[in-house]
Amino acid sequence: MDPLERLDFEKRGGVVMAIAQDEATGEVLMTAFMNEASFRKTLETGQVVYWSTSRDRLWHKGEESGNVQVVKGVYVDCDGDAVLLRVEQRGRAACHTGKRSCFSWKLDADRWVDVGEQVFDPAEVYGR
Amino acid sequence: MDPLERLDFEKRGGVVMAIAQDEATGEVLMTAFMNEASFRKTLETGQVVYWSTSRDRLWHKGEESGNVQVVKGVYVDCDGDAVLLRVEQRGRAACHTGKRSCFSWKLDADRWVDVGEQVFDPAEVYGR
Repeated sequence: MDPLERLDFEKRGGVVMAIAQDEATGEVLMTAFMNEASFRKTLETGQVVYWSTSRDRLWHKGEESGNVQVVKGVYVDCDGDAVLLRVEQRGRAACHTGKRSCFSWKLDADRWVDVGEQVFDPAEVYGR
Repeated sequence: MDPLERLDFEKRGGVVMAIAQDEATGEVLMTAFMNEASFRKTLETGQVVYWSTSRDRLWHKGEESGNVQVVKGVYVDCDGDAVLLRVEQRGRAACHTGKRSCFSWKLDADRWVDVGEQVFDPAEVYGR
């Protein structure tokens, strides 16, 4: 069976939601989208390749920073419109802000507090 | 500050992605959408209320099954288009199939294997 058969790309116009979770710590690192090509590429290469909806192109996570996500487990949900990737996060940080997880803002009463661990300096890594 | 100010509902036509993660075990339970009203309702009630994009209405998770999600922590990501909810999953199951998590299908080579724990019988709970 083609693994893509359980995925429903039609429902959301050619993409499924993709969630990356750190295999070791269980942290949810980020969410983005995948189209068919990016899902196939992810399986082929063993590293996560998203579909960038803003740039309309394959997005090999970590292509600039080196912080690639090595695939450890691939799951799909009950209705086939979302995938969960258990990954080894190279460089210990998933977010372009240099934080470990993109979900670094936590609501404390009615205030957002940045609780994320700063792993790298984005100015150094991206040169901007 | 209004907690909604950090959320970008414009980007995806009025909704943000919402991921529910079990507070105790770290399991990713499900993903769905929230609009402004459902996010506010979630904060007000302390239980997760999604926006059902298929039924176009507020979806108080567990309204039929009783398996509500009690909010333990609310996080938003770097670009404000996704929220992560750390929850206490009442009834121990999030999925309408009776599985603990919606992400019960795991890819094993090129085969999907159902690795989910069956917690309840959907025929009994939903009477269908």
